[in-house]
Amino acid sequence: MNTVQRLAQALGHRFNHQELLIQALTHRSVGAANNERLEFLGDALIGFVIAEALWKRFPKADEGTLSRMRASLVKRESLARLARDLKLGEALRLGAGELRTGGHARDSILADGLEAVLGAVYFDAGFEQARTVVLTLFAARLEQTDAERAGKDPKTRLQECLQSYKRPLPDYLVLSIDGDQHDQTFTVSCQLQDADVTTRATGTSRRRAEQAAAALMLEHIQYG
Amino acid sequence: MNTVQRLAQALGHRFNHQELLIQALTHRSVGAANNERLEFLGDALIGFVIAEALWKRFPKADEGTLSRMRASLVKRESLARLARDLKLGEALRLGAGELRTGGHARDSILADGLEAVLGAVYFDAGFEQARTVVLTLFAARLEQTDAERAGKDPKTRLQECLQSYKRPLPDYLVLSIDGDQHDQTFTVSCQLQDADVTTRATGTSRRRAEQAAAALMLEHIQYG
Repeated sequence: MNTVQRLAQALGHRFNHQELLIQALTHRSVGAANNERLEFLGDALIGFVIAEALWKRFPKADEGTLSRMRASLVKRESLARLARDLKLGEALRLGAGELRTGGHARDSILADGLEAVLGAVYFDAGFEQARTVVLTLFAARLEQTDAERAGKDPKTRLQECLQSYKRPLPDYLVLSIDGDQHDQTFTVSCQLQDADVTTRATGTSRRRAEQAAAALMLEHIQYG
Repeated sequence: MNTVQRLAQALGHRFNHQELLIQALTHRSVGAANNERLEFLGDALIGFVIAEALWKRFPKADEGTLSRMRASLVKRESLARLARDLKLGEALRLGAGELRTGGHARDSILADGLEAVLGAVYFDAGFEQARTVVLTLFAARLEQTDAERAGKDPKTRLQECLQSYKRPLPDYLVLSIDGDQHDQTFTVSCQLQDADVTTRATGTSRRRAEQAAAALMLEHIQYG
């Protein structure tokens, strides 16, 4: 399976018109048949689908709050992170100059590419399918927005995040306790059971150290 | 039929949940159950539907051109004009302060109200219906964008515009010719056959004067 097919699989969409996906992955540095028009379409699509999702999830949030939440979810850095999760950079087609200067890894090119790919999904299969793909892609970030607004602590959020992917819960381990009895520092690890990823953090209590380690793990899972 | 029912009829949408339309017409000056959240949803909906419409209509236009066309179509003044065509101001619910200071006629309040009403259509009946309502509402403006890009002259655009509404063609009449033979000024009127509206313009030839009068009539029809 090549990088383009892997990307389609990661998105959960089987393209009827594979050439649309190819065009969506073609940067303007390659030539005239590039992804800029699809990016325009995808940008508008994402804006609307995320607006609707936030609107439904947060029935008490006012317009200003909804606008801020959306801006955070769809900003360039956020889209680039999602693109990296999908390994979209590997499937991009760039001109020689961009290739040489590492365009595959640039936030702007990744974000634009993701918008174009989602625009292509819409053109390929219509609104309902595109909406499903966008919501699936943003699911973890939307959950996080939910949890942050609900004031949930990082351990709870990590647990819910893993459960949403049907993954096992993490192990927390006290690695060391340093200092005098009234001024102790706890060093704790948080380890995933199904992946070789461990985060470490310190705190003035075991609980605080675990929360900090969980927050780091959440960052890792959500932003890579 | 009251002003709210007339508005729904003008939009071409029969609301399943009439209370949604009422809320969409309720300005924040009235109280907490106002139209600001629906406006957020409607703004995103319009942005996407117009993006898609332009994307399909102008397959050769680049992203920058599409963005500029969209910005012009969805800017506050444009939305306010559409709202006036729908007599949306008459159906708005405003607080005492806004009523006193003429809020019914203010561009920002009209534009926000129209966005909210379209958000309500989406929530009431789903994407396909909302898309149809938005496209019908913007049809004349989209046609005009088409014609302007195609470099069509005002008389042709006026003719096409009237035909699209199945209205009779206008009458052009030379009202006067002034000046010396080599420096003449033609004054021409353009009159609708099915409405008591006449525009007048002058030009250095009969043709130029007619084009100018047709442009004024187009302005009148499209922007009221």
